[in-house]
Amino acid sequence: MNYDLQTKLKLLNHLMSFISEERKKRFSDIINFRTRHLTVVLEDIYQSHNASAVLRSCDLTGVQDIHIIENKNEYDVNPEVALGSSKWLNLIKYNSNENNTLDAYNKLRGKGYKIIATTPHKNSKDLDSLSIDDKTAIVFGTELTGLSNIAIDAADEYLRIPMYGFTESYNISVSAAITLFTLTQRLHKSDINWKLDTNEITDIQLDWARNSISRHEVVEKHFFNNMN
Amino acid sequence: MNYDLQTKLKLLNHLMSFISEERKKRFSDIINFRTRHLTVVLEDIYQSHNASAVLRSCDLTGVQDIHIIENKNEYDVNPEVALGSSKWLNLIKYNSNENNTLDAYNKLRGKGYKIIATTPHKNSKDLDSLSIDDKTAIVFGTELTGLSNIAIDAADEYLRIPMYGFTESYNISVSAAITLFTLTQRLHKSDINWKLDTNEITDIQLDWARNSISRHEVVEKHFFNNMN
Repeated sequence: MNYDLQTKLKLLNHLMSFISEERKKRFSDIINFRTRHLTVVLEDIYQSHNASAVLRSCDLTGVQDIHIIENKNEYDVNPEVALGSSKWLNLIKYNSNENNTLDAYNKLRGKGYKIIATTPHKNSKDLDSLSIDDKTAIVFGTELTGLSNIAIDAADEYLRIPMYGFTESYNISVSAAITLFTLTQRLHKSDINWKLDTNEITDIQLDWARNSISRHEVVEKHFFNNMN
Repeated sequence: MNYDLQTKLKLLNHLMSFISEERKKRFSDIINFRTRHLTVVLEDIYQSHNASAVLRSCDLTGVQDIHIIENKNEYDVNPEVALGSSKWLNLIKYNSNENNTLDAYNKLRGKGYKIIATTPHKNSKDLDSLSIDDKTAIVFGTELTGLSNIAIDAADEYLRIPMYGFTESYNISVSAAITLFTLTQRLHKSDINWKLDTNEITDIQLDWARNSISRHEVVEKHFFNNMN
């Protein structure tokens, strides 16, 4: 349901009264480092432990949204690897079109994102030279074949992690972790306005509070009954 | 066998005559970025896919040596995850003592290494502030319980990767990859003398050449018979 900000803040305040001080402190520490300036796009990841490891790295580096393109592989969270991180993140799935990659790109561009495809095969920027002044969506491809041609051709820029060894590529979860860690550290040191706004913070904290309260639907219903 | 440098160089030259120009070019590109200034120590890693992913990251970032402490868990390379990277690296195992952790630390100190334990629980440096002027060995612990108390207490310094989420820790292969990538990039930009010397380069290229030639023992035997 879509409430106005004032109503949401009142509801949040109410839900927070059911949550321990320690956990509330945790929420406020963590939300302070959450960002949508940087986001992750996964195209047809088929090994769930890899996708789950990416979610865990998103949580740990503060990247709130993960966009999951399912042209071929339906994605499930591997609970052992994700360690519950998916319940603190926003997962946005693209699986209802013929080509979900272009659908995802269009929607992300509509929100102001520049699309960066990770590929070792193109003229590309590295993690230091990639501009992150604009909102940035980093796209990672499948384990063996990498990104689809469509995902590469329709991107705005290309990113490559330097490799100095015999192995041809980094594991997907490793390359995502290096990318997210390096770029979020760059954001933290920059003047870029990468933090969430009040509306976003309120929505996310509402989700977190709901995840932390058993039978939160009942609590919410009571709240709105008493309001009217 | 221990030959003098001149003999090793002659043998290397001979072995290289059996190897394609393309592969020789590969060897010389890769050896140029190999380092022993930074090394990795794994204490009792029990999931072989994690250890194998660390080897792959070592190869990709140019870290030549991996020190494997086996107090409890015997370590095997998972071929699917390591993608053959172990054959281009030096694996040094410590498993013959009562406490192999202290044995590894002593031997590393004997080679001039400063021992850095990765742990979130100690007053610690981060990846930017850790000094890497001296030879540096970074120690990673088991998946669930982290480093042993002995490994922590006997270390010289502590390293912590900043975490901003609900999850309590990075996956071991992810934290190793972030650490190795960030520190090798720092080395490449520094004035530190991190490259291998001629002796080390010759020994490693001999190993690589042997790994690339079928029945290299026969070729070597012929070489020495003709020399005498």
